[in-house]
Amino acid sequence: MSTSSVAHMRAIQQQAWGGPEELRWVSVERPVPLPTEVLVRVVAAGVNPVDVFTREGRAYMRALSLPHIPGWDVSGIVEAVGYGVTRFQVGDAVFGMPWFPRQAGAYAEYVTAPARHFALKPASLSHVEAAALPLAGLTAWEMLQEIAHVGRGQRVLINAGAGGVGHLAVQIAKSLGAWVIATARSEKHAFMRELGADEVHDYTQADPAEVFKNIDVVIELVGGETCLRLLRTLRPGGLLISAQAAWAPQLFTEAERLNVRASGYLVEPNGHGLDELARLIEAGRLKPHIHQTFPLSQAREAQALIAGGRTVGKIVLTGES
Amino acid sequence: MSTSSVAHMRAIQQQAWGGPEELRWVSVERPVPLPTEVLVRVVAAGVNPVDVFTREGRAYMRALSLPHIPGWDVSGIVEAVGYGVTRFQVGDAVFGMPWFPRQAGAYAEYVTAPARHFALKPASLSHVEAAALPLAGLTAWEMLQEIAHVGRGQRVLINAGAGGVGHLAVQIAKSLGAWVIATARSEKHAFMRELGADEVHDYTQADPAEVFKNIDVVIELVGGETCLRLLRTLRPGGLLISAQAAWAPQLFTEAERLNVRASGYLVEPNGHGLDELARLIEAGRLKPHIHQTFPLSQAREAQALIAGGRTVGKIVLTGES
Repeated sequence: MSTSSVAHMRAIQQQAWGGPEELRWVSVERPVPLPTEVLVRVVAAGVNPVDVFTREGRAYMRALSLPHIPGWDVSGIVEAVGYGVTRFQVGDAVFGMPWFPRQAGAYAEYVTAPARHFALKPASLSHVEAAALPLAGLTAWEMLQEIAHVGRGQRVLINAGAGGVGHLAVQIAKSLGAWVIATARSEKHAFMRELGADEVHDYTQADPAEVFKNIDVVIELVGGETCLRLLRTLRPGGLLISAQAAWAPQLFTEAERLNVRASGYLVEPNGHGLDELARLIEAGRLKPHIHQTFPLSQAREAQALIAGGRTVGKIVLTGES
Repeated sequence: MSTSSVAHMRAIQQQAWGGPEELRWVSVERPVPLPTEVLVRVVAAGVNPVDVFTREGRAYMRALSLPHIPGWDVSGIVEAVGYGVTRFQVGDAVFGMPWFPRQAGAYAEYVTAPARHFALKPASLSHVEAAALPLAGLTAWEMLQEIAHVGRGQRVLINAGAGGVGHLAVQIAKSLGAWVIATARSEKHAFMRELGADEVHDYTQADPAEVFKNIDVVIELVGGETCLRLLRTLRPGGLLISAQAAWAPQLFTEAERLNVRASGYLVEPNGHGLDELARLIEAGRLKPHIHQTFPLSQAREAQALIAGGRTVGKIVLTGES
């Protein structure tokens, strides 16, 4: 216990960009909520592939400064509210995505962020499940609903349908009435069918770009050559949205050549979107699937597993308290 | 024109907290949009009382760091978009409230903020009108809609109905079907009636706390003793929401004693709320009233006028370009 007046907490922190060894389990000052912010005691923190890119200091995440506490997905209990907050009260169970893609902070015992970066946790979800939802769920919801305006009967192809974003996108696309085609290895096909996929395809057996045509919307979660090839599945004027927008320049040239549309996308904190996800959860139309949990202090192991790319659904860290 | 590769811009900046003389018209580096952010060329920037409190370094605004470019209300043109932005394209006319209550930046030729801090400007509004809307409009909308859930036939008292927030709150409360009572000096009563107020009251003639009873919701925009006294107008269980929450501790004790509810409130950036305001504008149910405009370089004069507290509607700065 600290003898000073400043409260402390345990957190995963990195002092330099690099490998998993840069993630250190340390004691740091507990953050204090600014006006409009809430202080949340972290019960569970989701792990995302972008956490690994960030740890490595890749590309667009370089705007962050060090030292850095990773983690943008959280579920926990409101411990204190800053000046002017009415959205929550102390003791509320909330889930959210603090500050993405800027300062993070969820791999810790406590995190602060503006109240609108959170929503009330649906009672039917555990904290572990709720921590799996914000970043991946908002990405899927915003791509399908806000950007593509997916409607009844549209043919939606989801590339990597069993992954963190993919398995939520399958469910959300179904809830919007779409005909859903998901790519995944054969051993994941039963899982894809359970989530509601209308067609499943093993991309290791045949290139989906050769198999599927006349697609209205591609939700592209892999990047690289795969992303470029999938443009060929679209109907004229169809839309591919990629969460791996580092391919953007070539993607746009190629899309124009093929008379289709393409867009890169990066999620933002969005309290309204979280409320909409909670509504889908409560209606029984959406549920995050947990691949594995680790204690917060084992963030290195959790990130190593997600970097392997063979997980089904989400990996979540659990608080020590 | 700069010979370096870094672009510059003109802006109002302050190096120290203090009086209007701390607002300096300087040349600074033009900001660059981070991932999920847009760079907006400022056509008009709204002035708010909180800008003055901030300039003075009062209370809850101390979390900001110096040097500081003031200004949280902006309307302008998207000049560039960062990685992953789909909400807007270059050339779009947008309005928004960047970063409140943290870093500001709208008293400048350019400002950056996350895309969800903006919405498309309604075509029926000029940039000057749109710049008058975000902070005051979101404050009014969130208080009435999100916090108080005002519905048809409810009696809503708006304290300072002719001010920046007040004149928008009167219109929004009417659009929600409320019976609206607005306080204002007699010379502003015709304006209040035009906006739809059902009853108007000159607070210099009689204390509204003695005149009105059985109010469902008080929108309190003045603070101090006035705020405390207005608790007595509420029906049992009625709700007073104050945008001047520095009174919070006494306010809550007194509310409990009187068997009514009270809440302080501070607005947050909210793209969904801006979309809702734009919808009200387009439906002809909401229009900001402009008291006076000043060129951006005359921010001192604009802040002096708003600090006087006798304006009707909003004060807006206009870009030099």
